[in-house]
Amino acid sequence: MTSKRPWSPTRNSSAAPRPTPPWPRVFFSPVRLVGVVGEDFPVRYRDLFRQRGIDIEGLKVEKGKTFRWSGEYLWDLNQRKTLSIELNVFEKFRPTLPSKYQSTPYVMLGNIAPELQSHVLKQIGKPKFVLADTMDLWIEIARKDLMDLLTKVDAVCMNDSEARELTKTTSLIKAGQTLLSYGPTYAIIKKGEHGCLLFTKDRFFAAPAYPLEDIHDPTGAGDVFAGSLMGYLASVNNISFEVMRKAVVYGSIMASYNVEAFSLQRLQTLKQSDIEERYTAFKVISHFDDIDF
Amino acid sequence: MTSKRPWSPTRNSSAAPRPTPPWPRVFFSPVRLVGVVGEDFPVRYRDLFRQRGIDIEGLKVEKGKTFRWSGEYLWDLNQRKTLSIELNVFEKFRPTLPSKYQSTPYVMLGNIAPELQSHVLKQIGKPKFVLADTMDLWIEIARKDLMDLLTKVDAVCMNDSEARELTKTTSLIKAGQTLLSYGPTYAIIKKGEHGCLLFTKDRFFAAPAYPLEDIHDPTGAGDVFAGSLMGYLASVNNISFEVMRKAVVYGSIMASYNVEAFSLQRLQTLKQSDIEERYTAFKVISHFDDIDF
Repeated sequence: MTSKRPWSPTRNSSAAPRPTPPWPRVFFSPVRLVGVVGEDFPVRYRDLFRQRGIDIEGLKVEKGKTFRWSGEYLWDLNQRKTLSIELNVFEKFRPTLPSKYQSTPYVMLGNIAPELQSHVLKQIGKPKFVLADTMDLWIEIARKDLMDLLTKVDAVCMNDSEARELTKTTSLIKAGQTLLSYGPTYAIIKKGEHGCLLFTKDRFFAAPAYPLEDIHDPTGAGDVFAGSLMGYLASVNNISFEVMRKAVVYGSIMASYNVEAFSLQRLQTLKQSDIEERYTAFKVISHFDDIDF
Repeated sequence: MTSKRPWSPTRNSSAAPRPTPPWPRVFFSPVRLVGVVGEDFPVRYRDLFRQRGIDIEGLKVEKGKTFRWSGEYLWDLNQRKTLSIELNVFEKFRPTLPSKYQSTPYVMLGNIAPELQSHVLKQIGKPKFVLADTMDLWIEIARKDLMDLLTKVDAVCMNDSEARELTKTTSLIKAGQTLLSYGPTYAIIKKGEHGCLLFTKDRFFAAPAYPLEDIHDPTGAGDVFAGSLMGYLASVNNISFEVMRKAVVYGSIMASYNVEAFSLQRLQTLKQSDIEERYTAFKVISHFDDIDF
């Protein structure tokens, strides 16, 4: 499932055995999950979350069916077409956080209606760092709520077409700067196969994408990117541009593994050593001076 | 004309005076130019070439008018529409190299009909390194000639859409590998605002584009990229993947300056220190480990 091209410095170890259990209990930091599922949500996934150190007290189970989405990826895998969508229990979801969640220091506001993201954020005491994800739908139908949210977060991430749409500019460099003018200290623009860009008012970083020849399933790559980025930040617990740069790379690494197989399959077999191996590979493919592998 | 954003570590020196003459005689290596112009070609450009150490014995002046092109760049500046094209003296150009050119070690075959590129290459004794550029037109109308040329060169460069078109694959990672299977040791895919990719059979490097907020004229950026890359290689005169990686960065640096103003205006005022400054800036924006600026 992994690329057969030997990009990484461990390129002669292709005969190495696949990782075997036990898997790491936590990749970067313990996670507190907030979400909603229906009664049809398989018990084995709840078990999986628990096994991997994910607190699911904030996962509500409601009468009815779980949210479902099906879609088709276009040739460049950066664009997708929604074939069907059923909101189901997600339609009326308005999260109330468990009391222990209220002291969570690193908050990742996943892609839901920006008004709900604000509603979640309000319930958390004094977060150290808040990242908001979003999507084109909210830019189109809830721009005001989104702009309001952006005044309250430390970082925002979205993909290139969304950044262009929200900022009404074609240059991604201008778009990144414009996102910062809305409030966040950090702006991250994801570019799929072209990697991602990290902006502050006076710093800039560009990470390439890991060179995979075959991508099996891009679904969730953006969520894995943002979640891993935040997990790494929480593990370091001391934010600076240097740390953010590495966080963006760790996000890219985890996303690159995620797309190698359908759904969560690859992440379930991923070992800590795989992550560190690809971290070195990212250096090999993007550094060019005083480095020789 | 340069970006006002302070990406580089010299970001506090924005009050620094603009470069003043004398300009460097040569950026990387002396150049032997091959080409054709009409009688309308301004003398001042021939003077400019001579002043900058460019040998123009291979520049033929024919009766008639110089080649002319006009076009329009689309919103993302990666695509352009030809508005008018007049081949003029270029139509019947079939270069015969001056005898002293026949020992040129580093050969950059600019974008002309691949059969003519082969014709030029045949006249050179034992080149150390040959890079061929090309474009969509030749892929469409002279694919056989192009494929023949690719068996005879060390490196090929083209932009992403051309690489996809020639290799008939959508993945740029597969496209790069496929280009190598046609003959060259190195394949370079230029991606405009997304930087460029360098491939060998078992190595890979990704360079970002320099983050310019405003691009004044993308015309010739690809030629500047390829020419500077070759100039740097010739100055080092010892090819390895490490050197190629830096060559790609120097090509990107020079292209980033070229697009800051119309035509050759910016390159005419460029100093060696500008190049080294942006080299450091490229490190700042693409390295992420054990580096702190």
